[in-house]
Amino acid sequence: MSLNSFGHLFRFTTWGESHGPALGVVVDGCPPGLPLTEALIQPWLDKRRPGQNRNTTQRQEPDAVRILSGVFEGVTTGTAISLLIENTDQRSKDYGDIAQAFRPGHADLTYHLKYGVRDHRGGGRSSARETAARVAAAGVARAVLDALAPQVRITGYMVQMGEKRIDRARFDREEIGRNDFWCPDPVAAAEWADYLDWLRKDDHNSVGAMIEVVAESVPPGLGAPVYGKLDSDLASAMMSINAVKGVEIGEGMAAAALTGRDNADEIFLEDGSLRFGSNKAGGILGGISTGQAITVRFAVKPTSSILSPRRSIRTDGTAVEVVTKGRHDPCVGIRAVPVGEAMMALVLADHLLLDRAQTGGVRGRIG
Amino acid sequence: MSLNSFGHLFRFTTWGESHGPALGVVVDGCPPGLPLTEALIQPWLDKRRPGQNRNTTQRQEPDAVRILSGVFEGVTTGTAISLLIENTDQRSKDYGDIAQAFRPGHADLTYHLKYGVRDHRGGGRSSARETAARVAAAGVARAVLDALAPQVRITGYMVQMGEKRIDRARFDREEIGRNDFWCPDPVAAAEWADYLDWLRKDDHNSVGAMIEVVAESVPPGLGAPVYGKLDSDLASAMMSINAVKGVEIGEGMAAAALTGRDNADEIFLEDGSLRFGSNKAGGILGGISTGQAITVRFAVKPTSSILSPRRSIRTDGTAVEVVTKGRHDPCVGIRAVPVGEAMMALVLADHLLLDRAQTGGVRGRIG
Amino acid sequence: MSLNSFGHLFRFTTWGESHGPALGVVVDGCPPGLPLTEALIQPWLDKRRPGQNRNTTQRQEPDAVRILSGVFEGVTTGTAISLLIENTDQRSKDYGDIAQAFRPGHADLTYHLKYGVRDHRGGGRSSARETAARVAAAGVARAVLDALAPQVRITGYMVQMGEKRIDRARFDREEIGRNDFWCPDPVAAAEWADYLDWLRKDDHNSVGAMIEVVAESVPPGLGAPVYGKLDSDLASAMMSINAVKGVEIGEGMAAAALTGRDNADEIFLEDGSLRFGSNKAGGILGGISTGQAITVRFAVKPTSSILSPRRSIRTDGTAVEVVTKGRHDPCVGIRAVPVGEAMMALVLADHLLLDRAQTGGVRGRIG
Amino acid sequence: MSLNSFGHLFRFTTWGESHGPALGVVVDGCPPGLPLTEALIQPWLDKRRPGQNRNTTQRQEPDAVRILSGVFEGVTTGTAISLLIENTDQRSKDYGDIAQAFRPGHADLTYHLKYGVRDHRGGGRSSARETAARVAAAGVARAVLDALAPQVRITGYMVQMGEKRIDRARFDREEIGRNDFWCPDPVAAAEWADYLDWLRKDDHNSVGAMIEVVAESVPPGLGAPVYGKLDSDLASAMMSINAVKGVEIGEGMAAAALTGRDNADEIFLEDGSLRFGSNKAGGILGGISTGQAITVRFAVKPTSSILSPRRSIRTDGTAVEVVTKGRHDPCVGIRAVPVGEAMMALVLADHLLLDRAQTGGVRGRIG
Repeated sequence: MSLNSFGHLFRFTTWGESHGPALGVVVDGCPPGLPLTEALIQPWLDKRRPGQNRNTTQRQEPDAVRILSGVFEGVTTGTAISLLIENTDQRSKDYGDIAQAFRPGHADLTYHLKYGVRDHRGGGRSSARETAARVAAAGVARAVLDALAPQVRITGYMVQMGEKRIDRARFDREEIGRNDFWCPDPVAAAEWADYLDWLRKDDHNSVGAMIEVVAESVPPGLGAPVYGKLDSDLASAMMSINAVKGVEIGEGMAAAALTGRDNADEIFLEDGSLRFGSNKAGGILGGISTGQAITVRFAVKPTSSILSPRRSIRTDGTAVEVVTKGRHDPCVGIRAVPVGEAMMALVLADHLLLDRAQTGGVRGRIG
Repeated sequence: MSLNSFGHLFRFTTWGESHGPALGVVVDGCPPGLPLTEALIQPWLDKRRPGQNRNTTQRQEPDAVRILSGVFEGVTTGTAISLLIENTDQRSKDYGDIAQAFRPGHADLTYHLKYGVRDHRGGGRSSARETAARVAAAGVARAVLDALAPQVRITGYMVQMGEKRIDRARFDREEIGRNDFWCPDPVAAAEWADYLDWLRKDDHNSVGAMIEVVAESVPPGLGAPVYGKLDSDLASAMMSINAVKGVEIGEGMAAAALTGRDNADEIFLEDGSLRFGSNKAGGILGGISTGQAITVRFAVKPTSSILSPRRSIRTDGTAVEVVTKGRHDPCVGIRAVPVGEAMMALVLADHLLLDRAQTGGVRGRIG
Repeated sequence: MSLNSFGHLFRFTTWGESHGPALGVVVDGCPPGLPLTEALIQPWLDKRRPGQNRNTTQRQEPDAVRILSGVFEGVTTGTAISLLIENTDQRSKDYGDIAQAFRPGHADLTYHLKYGVRDHRGGGRSSARETAARVAAAGVARAVLDALAPQVRITGYMVQMGEKRIDRARFDREEIGRNDFWCPDPVAAAEWADYLDWLRKDDHNSVGAMIEVVAESVPPGLGAPVYGKLDSDLASAMMSINAVKGVEIGEGMAAAALTGRDNADEIFLEDGSLRFGSNKAGGILGGISTGQAITVRFAVKPTSSILSPRRSIRTDGTAVEVVTKGRHDPCVGIRAVPVGEAMMALVLADHLLLDRAQTGGVRGRIG
Repeated sequence: MSLNSFGHLFRFTTWGESHGPALGVVVDGCPPGLPLTEALIQPWLDKRRPGQNRNTTQRQEPDAVRILSGVFEGVTTGTAISLLIENTDQRSKDYGDIAQAFRPGHADLTYHLKYGVRDHRGGGRSSARETAARVAAAGVARAVLDALAPQVRITGYMVQMGEKRIDRARFDREEIGRNDFWCPDPVAAAEWADYLDWLRKDDHNSVGAMIEVVAESVPPGLGAPVYGKLDSDLASAMMSINAVKGVEIGEGMAAAALTGRDNADEIFLEDGSLRFGSNKAGGILGGISTGQAITVRFAVKPTSSILSPRRSIRTDGTAVEVVTKGRHDPCVGIRAVPVGEAMMALVLADHLLLDRAQTGGVRGRIG
């Protein structure tokens, strides 16, 4: 059972509602002896934190993480690690209107249908605020990666906002951290900025996005047939992020259009190292990493809470036009970038430990 | 841990290699008292079975399922259900060449790297033959659906082969079973037939495909936040199918291009029933079913085993040109259609039982 | 994986060290709509709380529970329930001596061997303080029982302290709450009081105990073959409590001495209700409840931390005589009584939900 | 969920009914590269097999195991291992009488109540025949032990039959395999033989037993707080065996009578190795192995199926006197000995892999 938990061996359980007193995560299965402090986790939360620019919700919270267990004198002890983030800026009154009306495209309706009761304030459990807990958990995952595979490098960025895609020819890794959108293309970033301003102020609308997360230098051999496939776990991980509607590995949906000849990533051995003619597979074959860069993309739908009126019903069944005030990201995809990176780190840490259990980390030899 | 198991409560474990003596599945958590016989499961296996036309592998096997446990006098007893399918047509000699050479795009390489040893015959555990076990398990899942939600209707079909897509205007549900491709568009089906003949005979190539699986009349309220989301489980389920590289729910990757106004599925109440202005969400909001049709698409990459030579290496590191003889589907996507349907049935049965546990099947009222 | 989690469907995860800032539990899988407040959970924690009399550790803490998630306006929402208890009275300096020396009979040694690092303060994760989190979780389990099987009555009591057993002929349920030992025999309670005074003050020693937990009016049909047996889960649950060394169901170890004729609980039907000639089985047959009282006993070893010197070694390998000062229960079995009740409630809640999933709560008919 | 599965990482799932066509087990999580053949597993099944002497059921079956997957050319491949044992001697007619009447002390009643339907033949899923599947799985576990901890030595034996206990002063390890009862005391073995003859032939009765299983040379550091404790898992494992009513570790239930001074296993370092003054703890402290011998005892109740009449009811509610003919062990405890050994091997293999995942097998240093 895993309603609020994720992972095989490195397993985390999140809890908390958008407007409750706090939210948090318990991380189970972490190895002992790893350096871990709040200062090591906090930067990842800061990266995800809202209110940093005009394009994300203006909710202002420090999102300060506290380690409540599992760490002693700056190192992990091998016991359960509890991380807590207080909610300090819950303006519940903003959400009074949505207690009785279902926002189209939002989980209001399904929570009501399934549970009868729901904490409507800020979306309660369905709020993207839950992802702060994942990002905190990923701080622990990164400690595992640093210990077992320090060469791994995880990079997330936006490749599309609405209908506007980046130009891959202009891809600049350094640019990613320089704009509000984790956009690797400076020209696209500038266009997106204008577009989003207009969308928010004039159009009272929101927009979807596509995020790409790449993990480089991942050891080969992570993953397992058949239901512990690395790509299957990544698909589940990314699809569990709020508003995600599609997940791709490597060529993704475009693989449908390829022929076998084009799709074959030819294999070479150079100076004793594996080399490939291409990376259509996105670094995963048969559910197991090849050693090539693992490439995942996911699509985030536009924010459901918009200022434009949409037709809906109230809990009493009467018709209503819903207009959602409050603080909402016009493009939730922006904040999904560090969350996607977090899920990548969490899945990789889990599979590193799984692989250590099953194979002892020993690899089959070539040559 | 779930290396070879899938599901929360209705949980199945598959085993078996392509060229071992048999393959099978153990289904755990099935309710008692459900009618179940081999005759009820066999038609689903027959639908998936290879060798039925010239476009799928010419391997000829009856794929006859045997129920070995968990059923007494034609009804389930509530104990573990073991299903077994014997492998009767293993021509291992066909595969002698690939014991020492890695097929590009195939799991040969990663199995070797991870495990050191592997059953190379027919791909061993990485063979799509494993999906026969899932299809058998889905026979049990359908018995659960028949008992708890008999109105549910699951339909899978191909919407794209290579670069050739169906025309949705010609969508004809009756057509799906009439051609070799589970194609709902008779014109596309004819084109695909010619294309595949040429691809196989003249081009010595293979091609990818896109499959859509729709579940209609699914009760609202199935699924759960946050890591038991229905869409997260469906993504994991579909991505675990051999050769799948992308999964979409509803608008899927195209959601990235939408605005919030366009994406909002407006909500109405008509004669006491929920109605929606559209189904961009693909029947799932916040990880929980809305009652609308659940729509999943997934992309299948082209078969890696082709007659055209590709560059690769042998296990000893020497370079080689790999040409794969043997019986291989030029478009594995065709057989992925019944497998996708099976995974849908398995996920829905699991969530029906999970929901019964948590809510007793009671729904929140509207009006 | 379940290093810090327990339960199939109603699954809880505890975290926290004895002298960390707090400890807590996340409860997953709870049904929605159940009344739950801190005031409903607190009495169970108060029952377990130390410092209430001279026979338990003099550590004084309010052990006030806070609900941080999963509850809205006094009812459960179906999402993860996070409960937190702050540690307010950690006198870490008391434990300075044990940082470098292993107490015989204590987890100091094995934690050191396994993890290399450990939070030695108060035993860290191995402290019985962890059981406060279970007792809090059981507050949620009782809400489940109240909703699905309100007639269930769980009663725990001590039946033996050291070599002194209760006289079953003097069993008085009302007496249990009147003495410091949850002892149903007033004569034994008086003897135990004198004995424990002497043991603590004069003998500088501690003593073991045996606890019995009975669940009456449990519905028949809870549990499942083969590894979800109710007794198997109860054995695991009770053995996971600190210092427990043995678990019995019904006749328990004494069943080894019985013959089949004596052991047969004869079955009758009276006024349409099942009746039994005896309850040797302790209410469980084939891992499934019969409807008779479920009877579990477990033995708790004496507190390892005593004022009498015992020979041991330091982490540097040198020999040492260990004398443990600090606040320690001379008979930890006393506080194990409410913990045993808690584990019974947790296991029953889990199996009530599991049974609802698999059978819908429908029972096979007799007559 | 684990209705028919056991284990964290090394996880097995059993299936099969007493009188179905076959029974079996799927073992998941086994490392690759381990030698495994049917010839390596078969001896363990032969040890458990009925019909070997007059004191166990006269059912005659070869219990020949077949490996159906997960092994290639004599070594494990890291994929799911499926083991199958055919049922060849099902005399179903013998059991016709019990289809409609509940044997007191047997799972007949609870299966009927829970499931409504049941395979009554030979007890169906509740039959001790299920343990053959565990013993087969333990053949795989032993391959793991041989690879990761070859020094481990597991020995099971009976220490009590009915009221007759062995004399520990006469304990002779060599004697265990020489008599029909796995009895280490030749005098007791002779007494038991006479007693059991009389019980079966003249008294038409059965009798309980107590089994002890000892694992020597287990590495320290196996197990984990809090719900992955080695003793908690062993308790669950042993209690899941048919007819077991109590489980003890080390001093077990007798720990209740000890004082802290007596219970302390004093610790020494001799020539760099840990030594202990005693082993009251049974080799486990805080849920983690100390390196001392792990000692588990469990009580098996007498066979419920006896030739002496017991009062019961039929499924239609009418009263009946049940006399059970057919082939039944007068003391099922005898065959529980190899099953207890099997469960010990399975739990240890699981924890060896778990420990490798979490700590990499590195131990904290002393000195």
